[in-house]
Amino acid sequence: MSSYAARRTALRQELQATNLDALLVTNLLNVRYLTGFTGSNAAVLIDAAGDDTTVFCTDGRYLTQSAKQVPDLERLIDRPCDTALAQRAKGRLGFESQQVTVDGLDELTAAAGKAELVKAGGLVEKLRLVKDEVEIEALRMACAAADRALGALIGHGGLRAGRTEREVARELESRMLDHGAEGPSFSSIVAFGANSAVPHHSPTDATLHVGDLIKLDFGALVDGYHSDMTRTLVLGKPADWQRDLYDLVARSQAAGRNALTPGARVSDVDHASREVIEKAGHGNEFLHGLGHGVGLEIHEAPALSKVGAGTLSAGMAVTVEPGVYLSGRGGVRIEDTLVVRESGPELLTLTTKELVVV
Amino acid sequence: MSSYAARRTALRQELQATNLDALLVTNLLNVRYLTGFTGSNAAVLIDAAGDDTTVFCTDGRYLTQSAKQVPDLERLIDRPCDTALAQRAKGRLGFESQQVTVDGLDELTAAAGKAELVKAGGLVEKLRLVKDEVEIEALRMACAAADRALGALIGHGGLRAGRTEREVARELESRMLDHGAEGPSFSSIVAFGANSAVPHHSPTDATLHVGDLIKLDFGALVDGYHSDMTRTLVLGKPADWQRDLYDLVARSQAAGRNALTPGARVSDVDHASREVIEKAGHGNEFLHGLGHGVGLEIHEAPALSKVGAGTLSAGMAVTVEPGVYLSGRGGVRIEDTLVVRESGPELLTLTTKELVVV
Repeated sequence: MSSYAARRTALRQELQATNLDALLVTNLLNVRYLTGFTGSNAAVLIDAAGDDTTVFCTDGRYLTQSAKQVPDLERLIDRPCDTALAQRAKGRLGFESQQVTVDGLDELTAAAGKAELVKAGGLVEKLRLVKDEVEIEALRMACAAADRALGALIGHGGLRAGRTEREVARELESRMLDHGAEGPSFSSIVAFGANSAVPHHSPTDATLHVGDLIKLDFGALVDGYHSDMTRTLVLGKPADWQRDLYDLVARSQAAGRNALTPGARVSDVDHASREVIEKAGHGNEFLHGLGHGVGLEIHEAPALSKVGAGTLSAGMAVTVEPGVYLSGRGGVRIEDTLVVRESGPELLTLTTKELVVV
Repeated sequence: MSSYAARRTALRQELQATNLDALLVTNLLNVRYLTGFTGSNAAVLIDAAGDDTTVFCTDGRYLTQSAKQVPDLERLIDRPCDTALAQRAKGRLGFESQQVTVDGLDELTAAAGKAELVKAGGLVEKLRLVKDEVEIEALRMACAAADRALGALIGHGGLRAGRTEREVARELESRMLDHGAEGPSFSSIVAFGANSAVPHHSPTDATLHVGDLIKLDFGALVDGYHSDMTRTLVLGKPADWQRDLYDLVARSQAAGRNALTPGARVSDVDHASREVIEKAGHGNEFLHGLGHGVGLEIHEAPALSKVGAGTLSAGMAVTVEPGVYLSGRGGVRIEDTLVVRESGPELLTLTTKELVVV
């Protein structure tokens, strides 16, 4: 059974638990997750009875591609797909209420005829929380592309005095393509000196100076999966305050990573890391949550934060990324992408977390 | 008055026409259009009474940026913005029913208290149909970045035998950045030889050979505005069938451009271009609509197609992009971005439409 078929089988258990005869999946990432289709327009009607009566829909542009990517389901070529599939439904038809718009529901209701439309938001997202090994392998490759790009950037002298944040961002993104990425997984953050104190700084024409902190937050996209990594480096000899700040964040990050165990509450994972920074008196300078799930989206469930609910399970892929930001001086963030495992977290971003001095 | 304030004033006329006390704008592009804010999370509550009682909302990451970009409105820093703003509403509160999800409406309804939520989809999109001169200048710069990138690609020998589609796509996108683009406005289409017969071909490792058609469909993003251009070239001496196909599409494209007059029905514009290809016996090989609006989105209203409704107005920005695709042999598409003007269409993509032989 393909991993896609296995995911559809798992989804059918959810459909039975909620008494649905079918689920109309219109979120394109969920369609990709369930079928492998990578085009820009599609939907799938997952019949609770099985794949024989499950229908995939896309438009004429994807005739050839869909035949290749979705060989195992009936294919409908029509437009728009959501109403075309709703017309085929009977009984209790779940729809993705987190995705379907108010206007869209009006159209679905008109198309569905006697089928009863039932709110069923988040069913596929619930499955996507725990990654299967095919997904983890894609994440592993995405993390490797980012690791290698950073290694090549440093190795080829990409972080030298006088370069701009924009130039470095561009080289980093270009080197990720060299190492197998389909693209960057989000707009890279490159921040020099005092700019590193801005958590989500967009690259500017600011130039790199000796003594600057260098914060790089970036990731690669491979097979639709996103990696996410932050490293903070120093150009030239680090000042004492830079080294102290780095060591603090590194200890906090290690504590967060070590707390990644199946069954742990996400708020406890956040606390394990945050407590290290709070005890050092910098709690007010750690401005964001500890981390987030990664997969087909760069930010997905679970959120690792103070106010997060729920617990971790083996197979979840998350980031751990504490930071301390000293306004006007500089900031340090260290971030890895990891998979929660029974035997302890599996680290996917392998670049060293020793303070790198370039 | 800033162009943003002028757009809000124009929107208030729509609110009065539909008896709304306020509109909750949650579509991020519409927020940008009405306020100039470019961050990734925001909403604005446009009060029909005026800017004094209109409230912009974003989250803490954008404290500084929003103060700079939206100095002329009350700013609320809260999360989530949609319900925070709904709590402030009274009377008849319009919401963007083309954007708000079914789950989202439940949350808005709970937050809005006694305010009555009213479906009001598409009000801002209606304004966005006709571009103001600030928008047209951004489109002009986006088109210029694409024109210059193609010129530099050809001038530096980027289209030579042995290069892959992927390499050319990457160089084209890199050169757009060199010429002021924030990024490509969509994933570039680069298709060599028989691949050019696939309307939306994704670049592969296929290599360029002497005698190949080269189809390049790409665009640049500047200030949030998208350009869109296709040129088809030949490497080496064109065969007679290639030249004939090119001339046919060029004549069709000129007929389409010439039909862009205020008041023209969009279906008539499509017909003017399509008729040329149909008369030559290739109607079944022109597989898509003639064009589409461009602006803050790469595809927006109006659609120029057989089945399109409505008429053109001065200030609309559209593409004209007929194509003929001979399966297994090759295809030609020629596409410009233009602005409908009283005095005749203004061409924004200035690269020659003579058949370029490289």
